[in-house]
Amino acid sequence: MDTPAINDIGLDSDVEIAVRQELTLVALGKLPADTALRVGRLLDVSTRTWRTNQEIIIKGRRIAYVGDAGSYPGTVAHRVHEPDLAAIPGLGEVHKHIESSHLTPEWEAALVLPRGNTWTCEASHEFSNVNGAKTLEFWLKARAAGSPLKIFPLPGSAVPPTGYEHGGGYLGYDEQKQFMSESLMVAGLDEVMDWPGVWDRTSPSYDRLWGMIRATFEKRGVVEGHAAGIRDIPTINAFAAAGLASDHEAWTVEEFWDKLTRGLFMELRPHSLPEVIAGLLEKGLADWSQIALTTDDRSASDTLKLGATDYNVRLAIEAGLAPEIAIQCVTINPARHMRLTPWVGTIAPGRYADIVLLSDVEKFEIAKVWADGIQVSDGKRYLPEVPKIDWPDWATKTINIGRELTAADFAIAAHPGRQTMTAAVLRPFHWTDDFLTIDLPVEDGLVQRDADRNITKFSIIDRFSGEGAVSKMFWLGCGPRTPDTALACSMAHDKHNIWCVGSSDEAMAAAVNAVAANDGGWALVRDGKVVARVRYEVAGLMSCRSADALHEEMQVLYAEGEKVEWMFEPSFHPRWSAGFPERLAFATLTCAPWRWVLVAPSDYAPEGLVNVQTGKTHPVVF
Amino acid sequence: MDTPAINDIGLDSDVEIAVRQELTLVALGKLPADTALRVGRLLDVSTRTWRTNQEIIIKGRRIAYVGDAGSYPGTVAHRVHEPDLAAIPGLGEVHKHIESSHLTPEWEAALVLPRGNTWTCEASHEFSNVNGAKTLEFWLKARAAGSPLKIFPLPGSAVPPTGYEHGGGYLGYDEQKQFMSESLMVAGLDEVMDWPGVWDRTSPSYDRLWGMIRATFEKRGVVEGHAAGIRDIPTINAFAAAGLASDHEAWTVEEFWDKLTRGLFMELRPHSLPEVIAGLLEKGLADWSQIALTTDDRSASDTLKLGATDYNVRLAIEAGLAPEIAIQCVTINPARHMRLTPWVGTIAPGRYADIVLLSDVEKFEIAKVWADGIQVSDGKRYLPEVPKIDWPDWATKTINIGRELTAADFAIAAHPGRQTMTAAVLRPFHWTDDFLTIDLPVEDGLVQRDADRNITKFSIIDRFSGEGAVSKMFWLGCGPRTPDTALACSMAHDKHNIWCVGSSDEAMAAAVNAVAANDGGWALVRDGKVVARVRYEVAGLMSCRSADALHEEMQVLYAEGEKVEWMFEPSFHPRWSAGFPERLAFATLTCAPWRWVLVAPSDYAPEGLVNVQTGKTHPVVF
Repeated sequence: MDTPAINDIGLDSDVEIAVRQELTLVALGKLPADTALRVGRLLDVSTRTWRTNQEIIIKGRRIAYVGDAGSYPGTVAHRVHEPDLAAIPGLGEVHKHIESSHLTPEWEAALVLPRGNTWTCEASHEFSNVNGAKTLEFWLKARAAGSPLKIFPLPGSAVPPTGYEHGGGYLGYDEQKQFMSESLMVAGLDEVMDWPGVWDRTSPSYDRLWGMIRATFEKRGVVEGHAAGIRDIPTINAFAAAGLASDHEAWTVEEFWDKLTRGLFMELRPHSLPEVIAGLLEKGLADWSQIALTTDDRSASDTLKLGATDYNVRLAIEAGLAPEIAIQCVTINPARHMRLTPWVGTIAPGRYADIVLLSDVEKFEIAKVWADGIQVSDGKRYLPEVPKIDWPDWATKTINIGRELTAADFAIAAHPGRQTMTAAVLRPFHWTDDFLTIDLPVEDGLVQRDADRNITKFSIIDRFSGEGAVSKMFWLGCGPRTPDTALACSMAHDKHNIWCVGSSDEAMAAAVNAVAANDGGWALVRDGKVVARVRYEVAGLMSCRSADALHEEMQVLYAEGEKVEWMFEPSFHPRWSAGFPERLAFATLTCAPWRWVLVAPSDYAPEGLVNVQTGKTHPVVF
Repeated sequence: MDTPAINDIGLDSDVEIAVRQELTLVALGKLPADTALRVGRLLDVSTRTWRTNQEIIIKGRRIAYVGDAGSYPGTVAHRVHEPDLAAIPGLGEVHKHIESSHLTPEWEAALVLPRGNTWTCEASHEFSNVNGAKTLEFWLKARAAGSPLKIFPLPGSAVPPTGYEHGGGYLGYDEQKQFMSESLMVAGLDEVMDWPGVWDRTSPSYDRLWGMIRATFEKRGVVEGHAAGIRDIPTINAFAAAGLASDHEAWTVEEFWDKLTRGLFMELRPHSLPEVIAGLLEKGLADWSQIALTTDDRSASDTLKLGATDYNVRLAIEAGLAPEIAIQCVTINPARHMRLTPWVGTIAPGRYADIVLLSDVEKFEIAKVWADGIQVSDGKRYLPEVPKIDWPDWATKTINIGRELTAADFAIAAHPGRQTMTAAVLRPFHWTDDFLTIDLPVEDGLVQRDADRNITKFSIIDRFSGEGAVSKMFWLGCGPRTPDTALACSMAHDKHNIWCVGSSDEAMAAAVNAVAANDGGWALVRDGKVVARVRYEVAGLMSCRSADALHEEMQVLYAEGEKVEWMFEPSFHPRWSAGFPERLAFATLTCAPWRWVLVAPSDYAPEGLVNVQTGKTHPVVF
């Protein structure tokens, strides 16, 4: 072979052609192969059938040949025999926010590859909102450094999430067109979730969103959807008519079915998986080809505990789905939907040599995983060295508040002469049309919390503009009752400003300053002192270290959090529960079905309280 | 609605967005719909389930809403109720050469729409070889004029088919990139069939073919394959490894299975359909999602007799396949494979309102067909007016021989002083490595036919260069035994030069001149006189008139052909059979598995006889 070594990592078309030219000759036996992986059996997901005693012939990072053991006519440098293991294709995530693992991509790889997940359609809401322009550069960096996880970035459609807020990026027609032109790794547009921005011509997001959809169509990409709370038949139809090709937000089997039968590709997440699978089986569904299982968001700690894509598959099998169908739902089905079949989803020639070896199919026990043509895990142990990436400043210096905050930044002034003020109050996951109201006392001209009625203060601190703008309001049932205590975090879906909840303004300032000093992450202030910090030094969302190391640091935070008395007020189950209010990071979403939301101050909403469905603003006290 | 009328015919992205913006509001009931089509039942091909008493709400040419009858919340201008009919999506052809119907696209529409076929991935080998540069302009013209058949052109990869021949076009990287940039109707690259040109770096087609594959990958298109005669496991693997995504040439269930399980999307044609379907059912195949049924080539006469896509479906049902699966094999399966799901393949919002209404599902009896939101057929009757297209000269003046031919053009000279010469002899569909040889007498310095041994003369006349170049040789068992008789045709796969077979050189010249005078088509000369002509005035391949009119003219040709005694020599069954040698039009193919072929004279092969697998040339007599 006279071709120089091929760096087969990014689907650059010249490399792609060179790789396939070489593979063709290897398959014919006219060039030597690197490795023969012989397995006891192999699942062909194109037909949902097992074949016994097969050999997979590998050249470079790809599969050149699949056939009966001993049938390959060429020479092979290296032979591996796994007579007791069953080979299935590397598992894919059709919709995952790697940022929610809080690991940088190379460390995500080390976590999820031993759990079978070899390719991920990255839903880049989070990073894109922090640094939209660098979306591609960020997500392709680990792969370029040799990480075997294939990350297919889908630039965030929600950048910014609505027209009423702003973050660290703006993505529209031009940006999406550029991304899709730049790399074939970009499969499409990440979940379109500002539904009013799609149907309502008066929405400030309308032109931007349709511009991104247009650019994606022009480049033959896939437009992913997010139809949370969309359950009535006309709106489901409208959602599909708009060209949004999928949904991952169905909570019941009826909702799932209504969407599936309107042509949406349905992506099923664990929380509704058991009910939906059972319901579909009860309906006698025989064709699962338009269904995938997927993770969406899962922290590294939860992945260590539960699993990655393998957990989703086990859940499906436990719910009664045939293992082979469950496997199709994380291999060929999502690959076909995302138009990635030339590279992933089957154990077939031309695809990356990403293979999961199961010791038990029914229990879905993974013994070993191969990726890019080599074994990358043994049990839960990740074998390759994790590449050392020197993340540049545009990735690490993303907390730009511009100054130290003080208690005064969190004070809410009363109208002159008033003894009480009426506060517009929200709870986490408060999805009804109106905010709550409550009368609160005024002291020294400032409106006060009321712990007896579970009322605390919640704040969003703009971390992008450098102006240190702070919005704040009263929230119900989600903060510390313990005095002088506050919790802050730089992950606040989807703009990822800093959120903070606290029982005193001083504690809130201290917590936010601590997060900023760490370039992002968590800070817990108790009795006026910073007692725990977790660092997310990359984009304020991720940490460049192992899942285990991050998990341990999180345990310190949780342990210190245990020492705090947290208010609780039931809200939308299962999103909101008692205890350490970790999920406040998701309580700042502004997509459907959210209505009233606190965003960072802007000219449009100077106090930050806005109804993202209608665009109405409202004072936080009145 | 303040938008001007939208000309929703070509997937231009601005139109596409405007259409979807409007559909979204129609689905919500915020804008009025045009039509409600209520049906007794409806097949959801995403789940393979029937729903009863459904209404399909249509706006313009598209579906806005699907739901239970009476559930649509908006207003509707026009209501149609078909309580006794079953609605399924418009049927798609994943691989069809419309040129083989010999009808221009608007007349193809009139023929196939009443037979359920509403969209076609046009395999543009034939037109592209006649006028490659105009490929897109040609195939999009009828739709632009309002024809409801959606033709998705796939520019021919075989232009020219091998590096040893030339026709009326050259398509490479630049051309394919341009086509795919120009229109979203272009789904990918038509069947790559010069297999040596793919694997063998020394093939003169190698760079051109890989250039087209590269351009298709860059534009996220689908690279269609053609793996005729490729049956050994290594070559099947190599074919898939090359990135060729499909095959439609499997003849046996074993071959079909071996290809399907190597990740190829399998397209099944009628001739092998009964055997393959029966075999797959015997294997217990439960997942048919990687399989389509398709037509490839069928004359208008055969379509009138047998049917179009509907015939393929009936054959599959007769072979034992559940009707619902057979329907998936011509709707969602090919739409998904060709990445056309936003537009065709399901009865779902956003898709074209192309609906087939069945009076009997098991028998697959089509009562009515809707396309572009209106009823287009009643029984076999096509209802719309066929648009009058004034095909320009680049489409109609494609026979460029440059002069009248004479008998001398077809003479084959002997070597000086020889009494006999050895002739290299071919039969139609002679796919073996070596040509046949036979000693033939010499008279007046010219090598002679030998009717007693079934030896006649076959010729290819270059119709592109204007130089009137003629290649000729002796063939076995395919021409007229009747004296002074010849048959000529301007359809000669895949370059579509003129072929001619005749019992005298004078008759051959007369037949070719008659074809040329007609701008293409057929001519039969018997006893020295032109007795029948069929005109293919568009590209020398198609006629701009109804299937019935063409069929009648063909009957005259067949009737006159009956009066000729035709030689016959068994060759590859079922491709070659006794009688009127119509299939000689396919006997000039140069793709796999062809070996020795007669092509038009060129510098490379001055006498035209070349082995397209090896590039070897040979004198026609020696």
